[in-house]
Amino acid sequence: MTRIVDLPTPALIVDRRTFDANVTKMSAVRPGLTLRPHVKAHKSTALAAQLAAVGHTAFTCATPREVIGMAHAGLGSDLLLANETVDVQRLRAMAQLLDASSSNTVRITVAIDSETTATLAAECGIKDVLIDVNVGMPRCGVAPEHAGQLAAFAVSLGLNVRGVMGYEGHLMTVADRDEQRNKVRAAMGLLIQCFDEVRMQSSDKCTIISAGGTGTFDLYDPSDPVLARVNEVQAGSYALMDSHYGALELPFEQALYVVGTVISVSDSWAVIDVGLKSLGMDHGNPTIDGASVWFCSDEHITFSMKDGLPLPGIGNRMLVQPAHIDPTIALHEVMHVVDQIPMIGVLSSETGTGGQVAGGTGTGGQVAGGTGSGGQVIDTWPVNLRHW
Amino acid sequence: MTRIVDLPTPALIVDRRTFDANVTKMSAVRPGLTLRPHVKAHKSTALAAQLAAVGHTAFTCATPREVIGMAHAGLGSDLLLANETVDVQRLRAMAQLLDASSSNTVRITVAIDSETTATLAAECGIKDVLIDVNVGMPRCGVAPEHAGQLAAFAVSLGLNVRGVMGYEGHLMTVADRDEQRNKVRAAMGLLIQCFDEVRMQSSDKCTIISAGGTGTFDLYDPSDPVLARVNEVQAGSYALMDSHYGALELPFEQALYVVGTVISVSDSWAVIDVGLKSLGMDHGNPTIDGASVWFCSDEHITFSMKDGLPLPGIGNRMLVQPAHIDPTIALHEVMHVVDQIPMIGVLSSETGTGGQVAGGTGTGGQVAGGTGSGGQVIDTWPVNLRHW
Repeated sequence: MTRIVDLPTPALIVDRRTFDANVTKMSAVRPGLTLRPHVKAHKSTALAAQLAAVGHTAFTCATPREVIGMAHAGLGSDLLLANETVDVQRLRAMAQLLDASSSNTVRITVAIDSETTATLAAECGIKDVLIDVNVGMPRCGVAPEHAGQLAAFAVSLGLNVRGVMGYEGHLMTVADRDEQRNKVRAAMGLLIQCFDEVRMQSSDKCTIISAGGTGTFDLYDPSDPVLARVNEVQAGSYALMDSHYGALELPFEQALYVVGTVISVSDSWAVIDVGLKSLGMDHGNPTIDGASVWFCSDEHITFSMKDGLPLPGIGNRMLVQPAHIDPTIALHEVMHVVDQIPMIGVLSSETGTGGQVAGGTGTGGQVAGGTGSGGQVIDTWPVNLRHW
Repeated sequence: MTRIVDLPTPALIVDRRTFDANVTKMSAVRPGLTLRPHVKAHKSTALAAQLAAVGHTAFTCATPREVIGMAHAGLGSDLLLANETVDVQRLRAMAQLLDASSSNTVRITVAIDSETTATLAAECGIKDVLIDVNVGMPRCGVAPEHAGQLAAFAVSLGLNVRGVMGYEGHLMTVADRDEQRNKVRAAMGLLIQCFDEVRMQSSDKCTIISAGGTGTFDLYDPSDPVLARVNEVQAGSYALMDSHYGALELPFEQALYVVGTVISVSDSWAVIDVGLKSLGMDHGNPTIDGASVWFCSDEHITFSMKDGLPLPGIGNRMLVQPAHIDPTIALHEVMHVVDQIPMIGVLSSETGTGGQVAGGTGTGGQVAGGTGSGGQVIDTWPVNLRHW
């Protein structure tokens, strides 16, 4: 049986109980197909299969290769590429999955926001599209006033317009929930107006209004005439969480950590073997419970302990909470699922105190040990969609 | 023949002429074995082979897996793991390469900074070590006053102490060169004092004084009694460069870019398919010539053009300069080497102006085109050491 302290580091671990609790909390608010989980957060078909098992069988993807990987894993019954692409080869590769699936086991819907993206989708054999609407975030999405026109154009090419999407990503981390709710409501008002125009230009098979994320998952109030019409939410981070989303008042808890091994200890700091190549850094430094992170290098984090806590010894394992999980996971080959994490902070090795720098009796040979107190690795989820 | 505009994006490209010029400039100052190029910057044995071909046949690595990959590629005649490890399995894997190499084609030297790391190296079958000395950067390295003692301990375990290393990483980007030179001189004074003590504790086979990087490569003045004694420099970034090092007054030029495709264009901004999963972000946003980068998402950069330049059209290719190459390259599978880059900024597609959003005549089908003006891909360097 492999334990956390046996893993070569840096290593990603997932706390199974926290993961399950996060999934349960989300499913209570957005059951079944009212959630379209985003796979870009974890890039793992094994994790996606866990979500499908509780009823979330329609998925959101960010790249054609995520779509293709999900279809190959048997999770392709309703895949949305919630992003624009003009890559003809990859559009054709997705379309070939449709052709190969005469029994309709694979369905792929591609977001479009321009006549070019619509034309390329149609030319490459894509059948279903969603009109991607800009609801306030300066990124992709057609301007709302052109949504109906683009839908008509798509229909003229023979495309089936399934609905609209509008990602209010600029509102995900608004800390004040009342302010957030009001802004989301305004953005969704725009999206629903677009939907009504798009549906008028297409058919009664146009039904999807897709939006949202982990930061807004519970704001689509069923008693609100506007918000209730959003019929699917594209959340992904909620299942594993990170310290960025964790700073908000969300019911989800951190389930994913990077485990590092202490490789060097000085008078006032220690160093672990987790660094820029195993951490997404766009949201800033990671956090370590009980510690102050000084800085990250390619292969290292230098840190000290707070509140007079002793520095860990060489060979001890430390849990690192990444600030942003999506780009963190994309750097790893596999997530190790553990039954529980025995403690946050220092994971004891067999000696309890580890080795000492340039002095002491030496603890060599014992660093890979560990007592029965460490978490057991009970499953392995490959990050098999890591290639965008 | 594949051209830049034919590559699926995001894609890493290397400008061959600039790369060659960088390598030549470095070799003029640090020829042959006076440079021990760091492979962590590029994680590619194909690139490393280019450096070996001009005489730099001894390499620096940051991880055991880089060491193992270099040895397997036939580039293992003198590999330094310039980092501490307590991973017994990986130490043994490195030692097995030595055993398998009876003709001495593989030599692996491991940095140690504690009795624990020394003991583990010896127990696992490593033969050669370097005493890693902390010369002022709070990371790994034994305190200078304990360097001799650690060397004596290593010798008592039967290890061959080849010398010392002291990475003055905190001085790499000091903008004022006089200030930098003085600080480097002080740090190297410390390292050389340690070397003399370490050599006294070991043997006359102790000869290596290894330090430095791209930011300090030319500071080891042969006429300076202290600095002249540094006999190898561990620079890595110089060959490809990034915008972080590029901001300093160094003779090396940017040779590596991430190519993106414009997937969406609005009134005042455009979006390319390069984002957090294809860019190391610890040094901040990347740069695009002629453009203002607004922000990066997982799969996107949103940007506008400066000085009244027109926005590119959908399907156009853009060159992105990453702020930090090491973690950028580690996210990619391959570097595409091109003969030249025809222009910095927008790489024209066949139509010259690309498509337009929700209007215009549509340019579908033409986006993957391109005229003969685009760069030709003349070689491919896999990032085969990307797994730390």
